[in-house]
Amino acid sequence: MPVRTPDPDPSENDDARGARRDPLDGIGGGSTGSSANPGWLSDVELAEARRRLPMLYVEAVPVRTDGMGQVIQVGILLRATPVGEITRTIVSGRVRYGETVRDALFRHLENDLGPMAFPLLPPQPVPFTVAEYFPLPGVSAFHDDRQHAVSLAFVVPVTGTCEPRQDALEVTWLSPDEAASDAVAAEMEGGRGSLIRLALASVGALR
Amino acid sequence: MPVRTPDPDPSENDDARGARRDPLDGIGGGSTGSSANPGWLSDVELAEARRRLPMLYVEAVPVRTDGMGQVIQVGILLRATPVGEITRTIVSGRVRYGETVRDALFRHLENDLGPMAFPLLPPQPVPFTVAEYFPLPGVSAFHDDRQHAVSLAFVVPVTGTCEPRQDALEVTWLSPDEAASDAVAAEMEGGRGSLIRLALASVGALR
Amino acid sequence: MPVRTPDPDPSENDDARGARRDPLDGIGGGSTGSSANPGWLSDVELAEARRRLPMLYVEAVPVRTDGMGQVIQVGILLRATPVGEITRTIVSGRVRYGETVRDALFRHLENDLGPMAFPLLPPQPVPFTVAEYFPLPGVSAFHDDRQHAVSLAFVVPVTGTCEPRQDALEVTWLSPDEAASDAVAAEMEGGRGSLIRLALASVGALR
Amino acid sequence: MPVRTPDPDPSENDDARGARRDPLDGIGGGSTGSSANPGWLSDVELAEARRRLPMLYVEAVPVRTDGMGQVIQVGILLRATPVGEITRTIVSGRVRYGETVRDALFRHLENDLGPMAFPLLPPQPVPFTVAEYFPLPGVSAFHDDRQHAVSLAFVVPVTGTCEPRQDALEVTWLSPDEAASDAVAAEMEGGRGSLIRLALASVGALR
Repeated sequence: MPVRTPDPDPSENDDARGARRDPLDGIGGGSTGSSANPGWLSDVELAEARRRLPMLYVEAVPVRTDGMGQVIQVGILLRATPVGEITRTIVSGRVRYGETVRDALFRHLENDLGPMAFPLLPPQPVPFTVAEYFPLPGVSAFHDDRQHAVSLAFVVPVTGTCEPRQDALEVTWLSPDEAASDAVAAEMEGGRGSLIRLALASVGALR
Repeated sequence: MPVRTPDPDPSENDDARGARRDPLDGIGGGSTGSSANPGWLSDVELAEARRRLPMLYVEAVPVRTDGMGQVIQVGILLRATPVGEITRTIVSGRVRYGETVRDALFRHLENDLGPMAFPLLPPQPVPFTVAEYFPLPGVSAFHDDRQHAVSLAFVVPVTGTCEPRQDALEVTWLSPDEAASDAVAAEMEGGRGSLIRLALASVGALR
Repeated sequence: MPVRTPDPDPSENDDARGARRDPLDGIGGGSTGSSANPGWLSDVELAEARRRLPMLYVEAVPVRTDGMGQVIQVGILLRATPVGEITRTIVSGRVRYGETVRDALFRHLENDLGPMAFPLLPPQPVPFTVAEYFPLPGVSAFHDDRQHAVSLAFVVPVTGTCEPRQDALEVTWLSPDEAASDAVAAEMEGGRGSLIRLALASVGALR
Repeated sequence: MPVRTPDPDPSENDDARGARRDPLDGIGGGSTGSSANPGWLSDVELAEARRRLPMLYVEAVPVRTDGMGQVIQVGILLRATPVGEITRTIVSGRVRYGETVRDALFRHLENDLGPMAFPLLPPQPVPFTVAEYFPLPGVSAFHDDRQHAVSLAFVVPVTGTCEPRQDALEVTWLSPDEAASDAVAAEMEGGRGSLIRLALASVGALR
């Protein structure tokens, strides 16, 4: 399937469109360091920067664990692309100027999974992997035709109910084996099938 | 202060004493793989094995986190030694034959912090460090004059109330800076002051 | 294929063979803490302990890296079992009483890969995973019908020439993709196909 | 002491000097993805971006290891600031557009330690910590008054001879205990004393 990108920030790109109220970067809820930051970029400036600098992203693989901490399910997001195609993805988004990695992670989890997901952010600041997305395929396992993005990827247990804020978005819970399958990998954007496998490996749930 | 040991299993050592119903290894609560295992050692046999084989331990540094997953407090145990000395330690105990590391971790957390501590075991099987305790001081940072023990050490957030099961045991909650101080390290057994610092470093809370 | 065991210590088991030919535990080269240790077990005692205590193991997935540290090849060992069957495995062996994990790792690397392999032991004491082998299949991804073993597994770059000390042993170098394949996993003992995948995931080389 | 910044890219900042002497970003040796990249920013543009986007950095704590992989020395850089002050720091620099993290790490190691340092880049893509530098002190342990920078920090063994390319730069080798001392921390820029301690903790060399 056509590769696609780490989650762009629609709020910053789509202002001109008037409609399409930003589902991902709207209010910055949960972000202590980022509110009303004069340093943010206009759409044009961000588009420019994307062609000149590596963009810093966070990504999260939502999981459900049993009472002993063992991962038993993996949450995969269904999303409709602008051209109407349905793809699978994970929680993903940009780190803003002045925002901590932790705040960005929380903000994107809330945006993609809803306010009742109750994610348990890990105490450790270290991701399970660093995923590098390049505009040119083949440089790494990951690809994003719009930008060079470097993503800190975390496994995040969620304890509540996921209600994605956008209509086009749904969370499907799969067993670790299903989530690691070639079938699921083939439906995921930008090489994120590999990312799911690395996530499962980090929690000892990859066979 | 005199160094001491990773948590012995009183149940296995103190049978002969009749009294002293085992606070640490009594019922094996929470341990799916270990109940009524005929493979367990008698006291004499265990004492023998301790002089011949490295013993596998798990250790846990209990922490409290804020809503964003950041560590804000560290739980240190106060314990009276058999000779009446008060020392500081962390959750620690042996992995039994047939028991998973995760089960052992849960069992010792429950024994040391009580049934209402509600620990959140990490999804990852990898410890923040591997602490090697040798009978001879100086081989490593850690020391146990009774045995060669190798311990898988984890940071474990607890969300409930800690009520140590033994009279002699109390949990003190310290800030990361206090927990990492030389004063606290000096009161800890077997080099576990270093272990606390490594734990804090793994969650980015060591300055 | 029939599952098999983390590498036993032939030196301790093979007394019956008279000559006490010891391909794995011969000289203890590189092991500072383990020479002539009176604490070691006789064969009978070790066999006894194996039924009562979890045994501590180290395992190593040997790799070759390019000049930038990226893993380009994985070394898989071919070994003839006592019944003449050929299986694939990795470097594996027990940690002795008084021996550091690092020394045990070096000793088994030297025994399995020869004295000219020049392994680069990682500075970190933390394994990429903790593999738990149980006598009963199904408890975890790993299985060893002879014992309960807990193994600290490391990825170890080797820079020299591998000349396995035993006739029955050969090192085959595979690409990461080959090493992660179902075909290779099917030939590996005790679930170590999963271990290879976890190793590759830890170095970002699993697709 | 006055906090300072993750290593700026002098090549991009120092146009005013006319000669565009570039000690850190000169030739991009070893960088496969970064040569002659039309996407790079002019000085003005970079200065602008620094006020609007988090900058992605890599940092390296150079170490010397013994034959068993254990860290025995830590390399600290001495550097003269533009105002003539001498400070201590570590290897540090920006990741360029199109450049892999690994390439950036290698490039900055070569620039700061010289071409004969022979660093052994780790096979793992995961840093020992993610250090977040904010323009405002107090948000995290790290501070950079010029920008919001997020740094992936690695421990890198070096096997050769360090000959810093700049006159003002020198490498001092300290024992782990010295490197972790308050005295050294007080001389380091931007909170990097903490970074050194986290690095030592990750290799089990912090007491």
